[in-house]
Amino acid sequence: MANKKNHKSALKENKGVSQPEITNNNSISKLKGKRETQPSANDLINGILKGDITALSRAITLVESKNTKHLEKANTIINACLSKANQSIRIGITGVPGVGKSTFIEAFGKHLTGLGKKVAVLAIDPSSTITKGSILGDKTRMEDLVKDKNAFIRPSASGDSLGGVARKTRETIILCEAAGFDTIIIETVGVGQSEVAVHSMVDFFLLLKLAGAGDELQGIKRGIIEMADAIVINKADGDNIKPAKLAQVEFNRALHFYPLKNSEWQPKVSICSALQNEGITDVWKMICDYETLTKQNNHFDLKRNEQNKFWLIQTIEEQLKSDFFKRSEIKKELKNQLKLIEKNKTTPFIAAEILLKL
Amino acid sequence: MANKKNHKSALKENKGVSQPEITNNNSISKLKGKRETQPSANDLINGILKGDITALSRAITLVESKNTKHLEKANTIINACLSKANQSIRIGITGVPGVGKSTFIEAFGKHLTGLGKKVAVLAIDPSSTITKGSILGDKTRMEDLVKDKNAFIRPSASGDSLGGVARKTRETIILCEAAGFDTIIIETVGVGQSEVAVHSMVDFFLLLKLAGAGDELQGIKRGIIEMADAIVINKADGDNIKPAKLAQVEFNRALHFYPLKNSEWQPKVSICSALQNEGITDVWKMICDYETLTKQNNHFDLKRNEQNKFWLIQTIEEQLKSDFFKRSEIKKELKNQLKLIEKNKTTPFIAAEILLKL
Repeated sequence: MANKKNHKSALKENKGVSQPEITNNNSISKLKGKRETQPSANDLINGILKGDITALSRAITLVESKNTKHLEKANTIINACLSKANQSIRIGITGVPGVGKSTFIEAFGKHLTGLGKKVAVLAIDPSSTITKGSILGDKTRMEDLVKDKNAFIRPSASGDSLGGVARKTRETIILCEAAGFDTIIIETVGVGQSEVAVHSMVDFFLLLKLAGAGDELQGIKRGIIEMADAIVINKADGDNIKPAKLAQVEFNRALHFYPLKNSEWQPKVSICSALQNEGITDVWKMICDYETLTKQNNHFDLKRNEQNKFWLIQTIEEQLKSDFFKRSEIKKELKNQLKLIEKNKTTPFIAAEILLKL
Repeated sequence: MANKKNHKSALKENKGVSQPEITNNNSISKLKGKRETQPSANDLINGILKGDITALSRAITLVESKNTKHLEKANTIINACLSKANQSIRIGITGVPGVGKSTFIEAFGKHLTGLGKKVAVLAIDPSSTITKGSILGDKTRMEDLVKDKNAFIRPSASGDSLGGVARKTRETIILCEAAGFDTIIIETVGVGQSEVAVHSMVDFFLLLKLAGAGDELQGIKRGIIEMADAIVINKADGDNIKPAKLAQVEFNRALHFYPLKNSEWQPKVSICSALQNEGITDVWKMICDYETLTKQNNHFDLKRNEQNKFWLIQTIEEQLKSDFFKRSEIKKELKNQLKLIEKNKTTPFIAAEILLKL
């Protein structure tokens, strides 16, 4: 109980930037004494590479900071960690609120630490860019996993844009990997563009679903099924088992409507009850099969390399656009041109030329 | 026969920029005498607004030109035509080569001119950005439609990029509408990103398919079905009728996997034989139903307005990117940074910062 309470308050405090870390209660922290004196980049690098959770947390706080000096320090640390990163499997998990993501991740994470894995759970929450909230921070969740010394749970970073949040998460992955975490779970909620961002930073993308009344496939956000390497139907317990199995058949059929992926992996549908800890081993086995296949056919590395290129180009393009559209003369003239377009007094192309010449 | 031959040679000649127009043989051209003296923008505007095909063709040639003065003249003409544009239904038609697009468009177009409509057929061909070819220009196609005085057929513009070709097509639509064409058909082949471009400039998007052996739904390019307002299974004649009806059932099921569109239109699947002129009236009836529905619920205008905004932002973004990446110092350093990323010696974000500071 003491542990749980400490965790709660740590999560709450972490919502402000002033509190630099969430410390895992069982972690051995050689840096604790230095907390008030700002450890150097080298201290943090050494700490991370030794698997020290406090050093990892402080480095992530630097990554998430808006202070230019902090960010420079963060870049130094990331650069030093790069050669030790990449030795992991990165798993994206999405699903609408209520699907049981935290219960699933807790059961799944505990299963993995039981196998001797070191598990880091991160989150991308598009709403945090507006509300500065945090999907992992607001509630007491994953109570068992948070006490596990081989697990590290970090609430989602807030930021001004999804791109910014995504960048912080990508860099946090590197730090976690350098600290020895071999299984990285990235959670997101099934709204906004966050799935695309998560899909572009993980090796395996898992869609959590519920069996329910009516047509199972209605209301699935466009494109999500295409991205999924697996669909897992959760809460398959009690009276829900039959509808879950029915949903499994339907989703399996839906997956066949899509062409085979470049990975040569045929997406699978499985059912589980995270609450009753059933079907969890199957999900892990499936991910291991995926890893084996894609490491054999070289798709695993190829995909990571493509993702890196994607983020490079994406970051540049985002910056170019944001630099352009935040100029006050552009803002003013854009409004003007949009009105003219709406009245059929100019074309989008002529309007664009005028704006680009400003 | 004379007409047909003239048309062929007109199409061939038009592949170079030197020949300014394809003239419809039955068109009344008051400008013919002026052909060598470069009609003024005002001459062309007046011609277009009177429905003169030669004036229309010459104006389109200006739109497609790379000469800055031509483009300025084109902009003047477009601006003058804008208030007379927009009075049409714009229909996008896609399908892989061999699906019978030209036979379908010919049968469909003839049906429409029979109803007193004026039909313009344009094309977007992504391969033309590489080969400078043209999907409507290379072959003798639509032999009957081309002789019809209420039809206007224009091969796809070539260009350096899909964005450039799309822009030219968008502007050509405006000119055609100002010339009194009330039904605009935009054809594209089922490769590349051209469907997305066409989808973003039409009111109704139609996917032509064939019934064949095996699973009908395998091999459909991702996202195309989502964009379709209708799937029409062509060549439903003779022994093909049964498989076509089977395919209709399968596609209908597939369409139900997607959430209802903003237009409130439930996409439909129909079968036809363009060769035997069967099922063509049904397709037109379906499009009329769509128009009635979306004009009632205001989605028709809303969509056009959204499309205009999309093209404005799209054009600006494309230009910003192209200006950035064509700089020689960027090209050089990009290669360098990509190598470092591949070797895990930097992150995409740090690399992006370096490039953006150049």
